[in-house]
Amino acid sequence: MFFPKEVEIIEVGPRDGLQNESMFVATEKKKELVKFLSKTGVRRIETASFVHPKAVPQMADAVEMAAFSNELGIEYIALTPNMKALGRAIECKVPQIAVFVGATETFNQKNIRASIEESLAECNLVFKKAKACNLKIRAYVSMGFSCPYEGNVSYEQVKRVVEHFEKNGADEISVGDTNGQANPRIVYERFSRLKDDFPNIEFVAHFHDTNHFAYANVVAALQAGISKFDSSIAGLGGCPFSPGATGNVSTEGLVKLFDDMKIETGIHQDALHEASQFAKSLFM
Amino acid sequence: MFFPKEVEIIEVGPRDGLQNESMFVATEKKKELVKFLSKTGVRRIETASFVHPKAVPQMADAVEMAAFSNELGIEYIALTPNMKALGRAIECKVPQIAVFVGATETFNQKNIRASIEESLAECNLVFKKAKACNLKIRAYVSMGFSCPYEGNVSYEQVKRVVEHFEKNGADEISVGDTNGQANPRIVYERFSRLKDDFPNIEFVAHFHDTNHFAYANVVAALQAGISKFDSSIAGLGGCPFSPGATGNVSTEGLVKLFDDMKIETGIHQDALHEASQFAKSLFM
Repeated sequence: MFFPKEVEIIEVGPRDGLQNESMFVATEKKKELVKFLSKTGVRRIETASFVHPKAVPQMADAVEMAAFSNELGIEYIALTPNMKALGRAIECKVPQIAVFVGATETFNQKNIRASIEESLAECNLVFKKAKACNLKIRAYVSMGFSCPYEGNVSYEQVKRVVEHFEKNGADEISVGDTNGQANPRIVYERFSRLKDDFPNIEFVAHFHDTNHFAYANVVAALQAGISKFDSSIAGLGGCPFSPGATGNVSTEGLVKLFDDMKIETGIHQDALHEASQFAKSLFM
Repeated sequence: MFFPKEVEIIEVGPRDGLQNESMFVATEKKKELVKFLSKTGVRRIETASFVHPKAVPQMADAVEMAAFSNELGIEYIALTPNMKALGRAIECKVPQIAVFVGATETFNQKNIRASIEESLAECNLVFKKAKACNLKIRAYVSMGFSCPYEGNVSYEQVKRVVEHFEKNGADEISVGDTNGQANPRIVYERFSRLKDDFPNIEFVAHFHDTNHFAYANVVAALQAGISKFDSSIAGLGGCPFSPGATGNVSTEGLVKLFDDMKIETGIHQDALHEASQFAKSLFM
């Protein structure tokens, strides 16, 4: 088995996590959470989303969150899935943007009322402008293994989206087990093929712990040569009022796993524990 | 990565699981549980313990449980860690026995008030008589990775016990992460070395899900060539009144993991679900 010397954990709790919690979290609390996280040693944090506030009220404070992130001097990521969002992010001097496209037509239609083709076309515009502004580009493939509407997702479905992302200049691509139904075998096989087919792309594995297979999937992804992992403090992004239940794999768990395996993350357990306690307190 | 065509799951819930639950379960209920399990397709079930009832009151019904298991015609395992227990098991026509020895001195002293040396000496006698009676012999190494009293357990500590077991004729050896602190790296490294050093022994991996790394550890064990796994219905053996909390890895989860990975277990999910519901109902 392959155990790399180090990995990167990307903290997505303040955006991807909170966005999927139904309870509203006040901006001041979000800032506190980001501040706690900034002290853990984690290199990148997803802190804001510039999607329209009507679509995601939880993320209506993108401008303030970006300003605070700039103030803190951290490397942060903001979601900008369309040109309007990107325009606002550029005004806010965001250093790194993220877009997402689902690998299945049904999910894409239900999630953002657009076809995969339409989403990709919009992404191309976003990428072009982001590149012109020297922004780093992260791209998510949602439903990268299976889909609540279409069941198993084929390699070809994922490849189609990845190909577009690569051609248009994504710096890294995060492939998500968005509905938490992946298993170590498909994780290993899918990432191995992706790395073979796209040797120049940095892939990130994004797991949900719905079936409690997330850590097993992480180990499988390591074997396929993946060394970047998204995770969410306290597992934010699962069930409302029940952080960690079935949502994103938790940063605490992932850091413990890597620490135990003597794989360096650069994250300090004590500071992480404080951030975790604070994140949990938001839902108590 | 290596994904075998099939694995064997050994169900240890009715003995190892229940023994570690503080709530007493009536013999009739235990029989029902074993009956449910016998319909799942699982090949072997640990159904009884012949340790002295004063030491483990939960297991005082070994004679009845063995008789019931004989009636059902299932292949079952009974714990017989000393000569007295073995004598009773032989009278009950048990087909397969199990013994256990901890890999650390402190655990052994605290658990059974005997040194490792003394325990191994008793095992030797048990093995000799069991072999003379044509019984299959399973041997557990408890605290095979770490110990609540001594911390990390070295390979040499485990090897010492395994060597004794092998020399005296164990048919299979189950190495347990009894306190649930193992990680995929040590699991892979330890089982790989054990298989190298003892090529004629059938090793079994016995994981607890304390840190939720059990499935990751299973995947690591598969990579080391392990294809036998102990598990417990509903995760019995964890916290009293909270089956599955931090105890044995659950049979349901393990079967789902293998099913998803297209690895044959011979166990049917529907029948297993019924057994699981029944097991959980015991603690409601």
